[in-house]
Amino acid sequence: MSGSQIAVLGLGTMGAALARNIARNGFPLTVYNRHADKTHAFLEAYGAPHVSGAFSLEEVVRQLERPRRLMLMVPAGNPVDAMIDALRPLLEPGDIIIDGGNSHYTDTERRQAALAEHGILLLGTGISGGEEGALWGPSIMPGGPRAAYDAVAPIFEAIAAKAPDGTPCVTYLGEGGSGHYVKMVHNGIEYAIMQAIAEVYDLLSRVGNLPPAEQSAVFAEWNRAELASFLVEITAHILATTDPDTGRPIVEVILDKAKQKGTGKWTSQEALDVGVAVPSITEAVEARILSGLKEERVAAAAQLAGPSPEPDDAHRLIAATRDALYAAMIVAFAQGMALLDRARTEHGYTYNLHDVATIWRAGCIIRAALLEEIRTAYTETPTLANLLLAPTFREALAERQQTWRETVHIAVRNGVPVPVIAASLAYYDGYRSERLPANLIQAQRDFFGAHTFERVDKEGVFHFNWA
Amino acid sequence: MSGSQIAVLGLGTMGAALARNIARNGFPLTVYNRHADKTHAFLEAYGAPHVSGAFSLEEVVRQLERPRRLMLMVPAGNPVDAMIDALRPLLEPGDIIIDGGNSHYTDTERRQAALAEHGILLLGTGISGGEEGALWGPSIMPGGPRAAYDAVAPIFEAIAAKAPDGTPCVTYLGEGGSGHYVKMVHNGIEYAIMQAIAEVYDLLSRVGNLPPAEQSAVFAEWNRAELASFLVEITAHILATTDPDTGRPIVEVILDKAKQKGTGKWTSQEALDVGVAVPSITEAVEARILSGLKEERVAAAAQLAGPSPEPDDAHRLIAATRDALYAAMIVAFAQGMALLDRARTEHGYTYNLHDVATIWRAGCIIRAALLEEIRTAYTETPTLANLLLAPTFREALAERQQTWRETVHIAVRNGVPVPVIAASLAYYDGYRSERLPANLIQAQRDFFGAHTFERVDKEGVFHFNWA
Repeated sequence: MSGSQIAVLGLGTMGAALARNIARNGFPLTVYNRHADKTHAFLEAYGAPHVSGAFSLEEVVRQLERPRRLMLMVPAGNPVDAMIDALRPLLEPGDIIIDGGNSHYTDTERRQAALAEHGILLLGTGISGGEEGALWGPSIMPGGPRAAYDAVAPIFEAIAAKAPDGTPCVTYLGEGGSGHYVKMVHNGIEYAIMQAIAEVYDLLSRVGNLPPAEQSAVFAEWNRAELASFLVEITAHILATTDPDTGRPIVEVILDKAKQKGTGKWTSQEALDVGVAVPSITEAVEARILSGLKEERVAAAAQLAGPSPEPDDAHRLIAATRDALYAAMIVAFAQGMALLDRARTEHGYTYNLHDVATIWRAGCIIRAALLEEIRTAYTETPTLANLLLAPTFREALAERQQTWRETVHIAVRNGVPVPVIAASLAYYDGYRSERLPANLIQAQRDFFGAHTFERVDKEGVFHFNWA
Repeated sequence: MSGSQIAVLGLGTMGAALARNIARNGFPLTVYNRHADKTHAFLEAYGAPHVSGAFSLEEVVRQLERPRRLMLMVPAGNPVDAMIDALRPLLEPGDIIIDGGNSHYTDTERRQAALAEHGILLLGTGISGGEEGALWGPSIMPGGPRAAYDAVAPIFEAIAAKAPDGTPCVTYLGEGGSGHYVKMVHNGIEYAIMQAIAEVYDLLSRVGNLPPAEQSAVFAEWNRAELASFLVEITAHILATTDPDTGRPIVEVILDKAKQKGTGKWTSQEALDVGVAVPSITEAVEARILSGLKEERVAAAAQLAGPSPEPDDAHRLIAATRDALYAAMIVAFAQGMALLDRARTEHGYTYNLHDVATIWRAGCIIRAALLEEIRTAYTETPTLANLLLAPTFREALAERQQTWRETVHIAVRNGVPVPVIAASLAYYDGYRSERLPANLIQAQRDFFGAHTFERVDKEGVFHFNWA
C-alpha cells in the first residue's frame, strides 16, 4: 500500500478540523493524538479508506511517504518543543515538520536552526479561521525553507480558503519565522478590531439604549457595505442569539472578563522593540487586561465619579459609530501593515504586503471587504509609507473624520471608555501632524539628562546649557 | 594610608556627578575611567586629598578597603557585562559591585546569580535625578543582597536627596533586581508625565495660540500648587528660554523627534507580560515612536484631512488642561504603582509601595507634591487595590473629571492628538465600569475559536454551540 502524504499530530479543535479538511480533499492522511482515544474517536467519526490512525510516533513515521510531512497541531510553547524532540530521532534529512500553531516567531527560528543541523525542515505556519476555517478553508501563512513549502504547497492550496477570485489564501511568505510573524500581526489586528466592535456595542448599549437584538440588525446591515467582515458578521449573529437557559440575549449572560492567549501581547511587545507605533493594537490588549479586574471594577464603580450616560439619538449614534468603526478598522490594518513592513528590514523577511493582503481576503478571522482595497493599494504603490495614505483610505477617512471625532466625544462625555477608537484617532491626528510636541520632550531630556537634541534650522546634535 | 571606601567606574555625565557628590560628602573615593584622560580631567577639576585616580582595574581594586565597593556608572547592556567580566577575577568573596545604570532587571538577576558563584555581591541600583540629581542628591533605588546594601548604606544615605522631612531618598528595596525594577517603572511614569505635559503644551500652542513665554508663566503658576513637580518646573524654565543663535524660544528650534533609551518600552513590555494595564505609559512610548516619523508626518500633513484648530478661550483652556494634566499624573502613578504591586507577587519582590513613594519624593525626575499624598495613601491603606481609590485622589478626580473630558473634547474637535490624556481618561472610565463590553469579545472568541466563557449567573466554563 502507498503511504500517507501527510500526518496531523494533535486532534484538538483546530487539529481535528484541519485533518478533516485534508481528508475531504482526498490526500492520504495519518492522524495521531497523544491520547489514543482521541484518535479512535476521530477515526470513528471521520474515518475513510485514505485516513489512517497511528498510535505511536514510530507508527506515524512508518506510515508517511518521503519526504515525510508532519503537521503539528499542538499548543504553542513547550508542547511543540516536546513533540519535536520526540520526533527528531525518528526522522531523516529532508523530512518536513509543519508547526501549525501560534508559535512565537523567535521560537520558530530557534527550532528551525536546531532542526537544520539534522537536515530536517521546519515550516512555521500560521493558520487562521478558527474551527470553521480550519475545516472549510483557513488562511494559511507559511514561512521557512522554500523546499518545505514546495513539498506541502499542493495540500495547502487545496485546503486553503479561496478568495472570491479563486486564489487560494496561502502563499510562501519567505524564510525563517516569517509565517508565524505574519500570523502574530494578523492576531494583533484582530484584537484591535474586536475591541473596536466591543466599544461600539458598549456605546450603543449604554448611550443608545439599544438592546442586543436591535444592535444585531445594525451590525447585519453594516455587514452589507464597507464594514463587511467576518467579525462584524459574527457580532450580528452573537447579538441575535438567545441563551436557552435564561431566555436572555446570550451576550448578557457572558461574564465581561476577556481572556487572551498572547499573540496580541506579542504584537505589541514586538512593535515596541522594532519601534513601530501600534497603539490601537496595544490599547486592545490593555482593554482585555483591564476587563480582567472585574471585582476591582465593581468596587470602583461605586467610588469613582463619572457622568451618567444621557440617551442620545440612536440614529445619529449609529451613523457616527459606523464611521468610527470603519476608521478604526483602517487604522488597525495600517498599524499592522506598518509593523509587517518594518519586519522586512528588521528581520530580513521577504514577503510583500500585497501578498499578505491577498491571503487574508478569505478564511481568516480578520477577512474583510476592505482587504481587497488594501491589496489594490499595495498593487498600485508597493512602497506605500502608510496605508492611511492610499487614496481610497485617505478619502474614506476624510469623509468620516468628523463623525469619528463625534463618536469619541459622545463616549468621553458619557463616561464610556473607547480606548481603541480614541487611540486610533490620536494615531491619525498624530500621523498627520507636521509638528508634534516632541520638541518639548527633547528639551526636557536635554535639561535633566544632557541627552541632546536636533534643531529645525541646522544639522547636528546639540546640548543646551540650561542652568 | 587608608584605602578608598568606594570606587566610581565610568566618569560620564552621571558618573562624574555622582563621584563629585560622594567626594563632597567626604568619603575616600577612587575614580576610574576607561580613557585615562577623563580620569585626569576629573582629578584636575574636582581633585581632593581623599579622591584618588586609578588607571587600571587592578589599581582600582588595590586602592579599595575591603569589602570592596565598586560603583559602575557605565551604559546599560554589554558595557556592564564587559566591566563585570574584567573585574571578577580581581575581586574576592564579599566584594560588592553596584550597578548604577539603567540595567534591565532580568540582566541584573542573571549577573547576580553568576557573581554569587564567586561570592561577589551585586547591588542593582536605580539612580534618578539626572546630572543635577546625581551631583546634589539623587533618588536611589537599590536592590540585591541585604549585606551589600548594608555595606553601602552610609554612603547612599549621605549622597541621596533629602525629602522635606529630612528622610534620605534611598531605602533597601529587597532582593534580586527589585531596585532596577522600581527604577524602570519610575521611568515609565516619567514617560507618561512628560508626554501629558507635551500634549498640554501642544493644546495651548495650537488651540490657545499661547506663545512659549506665556505658557511658561502658566506652568510656573501650576508649579506652585497641586501640580508642583520637577517636570512642570523645568517645563516653565524651558518655555522661558531663548535660543541665543536665533533669538527665538529654544523650544521652537528643537526638532520634534523624541528619542528614547528603552526604559519606558521595558515598562510597557513588562506590564503586558505580567498582565497589568499601563496604557498611559504605553501611549507615551508610542507617541515618541510616532514623533520619529517626521518626514512621513510632513508628507501626510498635506494629504490627510482634519479640522483647522479654532482658537479657544485661553483662560478656559488653561483651566481645563490644568485639571487634565493633574488627572493624567495621578493615573500615570496609579498604573505604575499597580505594576509595582503586581511585581511583588510575580517576582517575589518585598518592597512596599509606601517606601517607594517615600524615596521618590525628592531627587528623582518624577518628584512631585502628590507623592506625599501617595505616601499617605499607602500608609493609611497598604493594600490599596488602586491609587485612584485613595480618598484624596478619588476626590481630586471627581472634581476634575468634567474638565478632563472637556480637554479631550477640545483636542479631538481640533485635531490635536492627546494620546496620553485620552488613554488616561479611558483607563479611569474603564476602571470605574462595573460592566465592560468584554462579554462580546468572549462571545466572539467562543464563536470562532471555541475558547469558552464564564457566565454572570453561574460558576463554570461554558462553550456555546453557535452554529
